[in-house]
Amino acid sequence: MFSQTAEYALRAIAHLSMNPSTPQTTRQIAEATQAPMPYLSKVLQAMGRAELIRAQRGLHGGFSLLRSPEQITVYDVIQAVDPIKRITACPLGIRSHSNSLCPLHRRLDQAIALVERQLRETTIAEMIHESATLRPLCAFHAKDGAKDG
Amino acid sequence: MFSQTAEYALRAIAHLSMNPSTPQTTRQIAEATQAPMPYLSKVLQAMGRAELIRAQRGLHGGFSLLRSPEQITVYDVIQAVDPIKRITACPLGIRSHSNSLCPLHRRLDQAIALVERQLRETTIAEMIHESATLRPLCAFHAKDGAKDG
Repeated sequence: MFSQTAEYALRAIAHLSMNPSTPQTTRQIAEATQAPMPYLSKVLQAMGRAELIRAQRGLHGGFSLLRSPEQITVYDVIQAVDPIKRITACPLGIRSHSNSLCPLHRRLDQAIALVERQLRETTIAEMIHESATLRPLCAFHAKDGAKDG
Repeated sequence: MFSQTAEYALRAIAHLSMNPSTPQTTRQIAEATQAPMPYLSKVLQAMGRAELIRAQRGLHGGFSLLRSPEQITVYDVIQAVDPIKRITACPLGIRSHSNSLCPLHRRLDQAIALVERQLRETTIAEMIHESATLRPLCAFHAKDGAKDG
């Protein structure tokens, strides 16, 4: 239901949220998130266009968040890279449905609306700070996992 | 969020639900649902394997429902052709996450669970019988639309 693109974007944002004082290079983010570099580059560019992150050039350059993790929702991240689309018009282009969806598409859109609401209500900060026993993000277990294995 | 495959499958099931006494050929279903024949054929095969519909050969052969529309949910149809996948394990394969998801993947899975529940609670019969003013399915406006246009 959520694409690989959305998954990488969320991992990248989580990584940046946990490293607020040091801009992170694409290579650093790729290592932390286990994402392939060329794919990740495109994801980072899309998040740059959406003004979630910015790239700083130069010796200590890299990507950092443009807003605090409290001000970024899971929804914002997904919309930046692989938007959830609501059903706003009859997919069959039926003229008499131009103002109201049929029951099928209304139900499907209601399901999409539920997801949208759930993801709008979840900030990146909540995910990062949640839970004492479970460490915040899979991405951050990558190195632990390697050590374990 | 819902694939074209899921969309065609739902249209096809709706068409069969509204024509319970006459088996429908792939061509008839394709016309009613505005789906390309080869694509639709595969969708119908998948629904056959899932025992939602059956094909009868012969002169008056075609597809018909194996269960009543009251006993088929939107979820059943989607699962037959393009299943909604819950997140049951850490996508990063982190060993220490084998028993519990991190907050990110737990939240995403919660959103998927909401959708799953919504679609499990909606039967095809409800969609067909719902609403006096709006006719039940976009698919069934296809011919009207053509007349309108």
